[in-house]
Amino acid sequence: MNAQRLDRTYALLQQAGLQALALVPGPTLYYLSGLSFHLMERPIVCLLLGDRPPCIVVPALERAKVEGAGFEGEVFAYAEHEGASAGAAQSAARYAGLEHQRAGVEATHMRYLELSLLQAAAPQVGWVAADGALASLRAVKEPAEIECMQRAAVIAEQALEATLPLIRQGMTERELAAELTLQLLQAGSDPQGAFDPIVATGPNGALPHATPTDRPLRAGDLLILDWGARVQGYLSDLTRTFAVGEVESELSEMHAIVQRANQAGVQAVRPGVPCGQVDRAARQVIEAAGYGEQFLHRTGHGLGLEAHEPPYIRQDEDSPLQPGMTFTVEPGIYLPGRGGVRVEDDVVVTERAGRSLSRAPREMRRVG
Amino acid sequence: MNAQRLDRTYALLQQAGLQALALVPGPTLYYLSGLSFHLMERPIVCLLLGDRPPCIVVPALERAKVEGAGFEGEVFAYAEHEGASAGAAQSAARYAGLEHQRAGVEATHMRYLELSLLQAAAPQVGWVAADGALASLRAVKEPAEIECMQRAAVIAEQALEATLPLIRQGMTERELAAELTLQLLQAGSDPQGAFDPIVATGPNGALPHATPTDRPLRAGDLLILDWGARVQGYLSDLTRTFAVGEVESELSEMHAIVQRANQAGVQAVRPGVPCGQVDRAARQVIEAAGYGEQFLHRTGHGLGLEAHEPPYIRQDEDSPLQPGMTFTVEPGIYLPGRGGVRVEDDVVVTERAGRSLSRAPREMRRVG
Repeated sequence: MNAQRLDRTYALLQQAGLQALALVPGPTLYYLSGLSFHLMERPIVCLLLGDRPPCIVVPALERAKVEGAGFEGEVFAYAEHEGASAGAAQSAARYAGLEHQRAGVEATHMRYLELSLLQAAAPQVGWVAADGALASLRAVKEPAEIECMQRAAVIAEQALEATLPLIRQGMTERELAAELTLQLLQAGSDPQGAFDPIVATGPNGALPHATPTDRPLRAGDLLILDWGARVQGYLSDLTRTFAVGEVESELSEMHAIVQRANQAGVQAVRPGVPCGQVDRAARQVIEAAGYGEQFLHRTGHGLGLEAHEPPYIRQDEDSPLQPGMTFTVEPGIYLPGRGGVRVEDDVVVTERAGRSLSRAPREMRRVG
Repeated sequence: MNAQRLDRTYALLQQAGLQALALVPGPTLYYLSGLSFHLMERPIVCLLLGDRPPCIVVPALERAKVEGAGFEGEVFAYAEHEGASAGAAQSAARYAGLEHQRAGVEATHMRYLELSLLQAAAPQVGWVAADGALASLRAVKEPAEIECMQRAAVIAEQALEATLPLIRQGMTERELAAELTLQLLQAGSDPQGAFDPIVATGPNGALPHATPTDRPLRAGDLLILDWGARVQGYLSDLTRTFAVGEVESELSEMHAIVQRANQAGVQAVRPGVPCGQVDRAARQVIEAAGYGEQFLHRTGHGLGLEAHEPPYIRQDEDSPLQPGMTFTVEPGIYLPGRGGVRVEDDVVVTERAGRSLSRAPREMRRVG
């Protein structure tokens, strides 16, 4: 366990009046303990307790992994038969000594599986969402974390440059996604990868979260690539938009607007500024050009061990930026039936401004 | 929506006395509707209702994706501001007309985020785990699904054969995992991949779910590779164990035992046989050889759109095998501090027996 990070966690829980925190496998457990597991049908849950060392409920086949990782706490392992996890959870609840108290869970990670196990083992406890309480826990990155993110950005850019010369008209979105993923691994991304790349051509680009299809790239298409790499768990998340051959002038103009919006967003970054101000700076450029209704989403999201995490760069988000925070700036314009443009960079807040970790050319390059 | 699969779902819900089913993005939603989304901080939940068409709560930026996929039901989209999803969930609950009823959720997928949204929007409903009720929904595969799994097995085996000649002593587990992942993509696995390969050498092999480390391959090591491909969403999941150079005779004998256990498990497969009997057939071989305590886990798990799904090949699982079911047979022996052996195949139940989708040589080959 990382003692300093654990202390910060306990302080945040105390501020929020939470006596404990229940974590399932995921970025926060990894951040605090280095432990990673797949989320599957065997429940795993770690309890952080203010007044005694943590404990963890795991299937017996994971016990050696937990002990090998130097987990400093109690391990309650359960065997491979139906319902065995309930007994281990009850032992953990007895060890934890939770009374009529409030305990936190991460709403975006805690599943019904583990929640119902906890509720059965400690029915007197109120299990509440701790996402607000923990929003700041991983938001300000340490230099070593920023170094990983910087490397993840460089690897993503190398993969892009290796992929661009291979793009041909007639190639499908799926084929291009496979090639880009391959190049990410060859450039040195962690084998588990970052997230599935978005490759969206023509009208598919009007879906901000398009899934690659068998649609072939055609002359006149806008092509959105939204991809990233992972280094020691830390992500990059970039987007560039390309012209397949020659595109209509309205589409080129849209790109120029989005590129200016991206720049305005990055330039609005500095310590003390509310997140919403970065969103407004980017949004104003797009609204002034008459495309406000076609910018369907917030300007960005925090980035780190998760692809989306605090701080959220959203109009109604008042929390102030702090040095070391890392997030995306990714304005876009989406025209139903025609196409989309998005330009996304990863930004770290420095002592004075915002610094982009990504440098790949932002202008609309031509491919195919 | 796939009408036939939807009808089967409604029939299973009715049998279990459930008036509705709430699905978050994942394999079951994909199976029924073809819709796939990443699970992130914006809640997405689809309600299947016996007496009216389904409805789905999505962020506005996903609306076009839902409509484009031909979703036949009501769409309740919410905007990008704090708390906007609560309003959409309330509209969905009003549309659904749920009263004091029991509704199902998938315990291994439903998160606190969506559950608390549902509980706030429909506080009178009892949201209960429907995993038991739905266990059979995806368990028997259609021929087209088995075809995908067969291709996924072939791709995994091609990737293995391309990787083996590249293995050298001194290479780290992480490097080997990266190479194998690369070869999976080159052989034609879906870009989103299957699951992160397990590459475990020497003592690390004693952890059934080891994560690749920087440990280099050394002569005398056992090397476990546990990897798979994905084709149109469907997985393969194979394991082979190799000798790096020359290994001690006890380790070779362990391998021979596990290989016999794998064979005994596969040979025990036929329609009507309880899952537990397959587990016992494999386990007996290992117990008879004196390694029963070192076989830390069940013999296998169902495989399809998920890496672990019903049926579970576990000693206490009495449900009978049916033609079209697909699962792994993966006995192992794990010696703390020394190493592990596992041999895993993907098996489909035919009208008379079990047929392995995987054919890669099972004997302990020598690498490096």
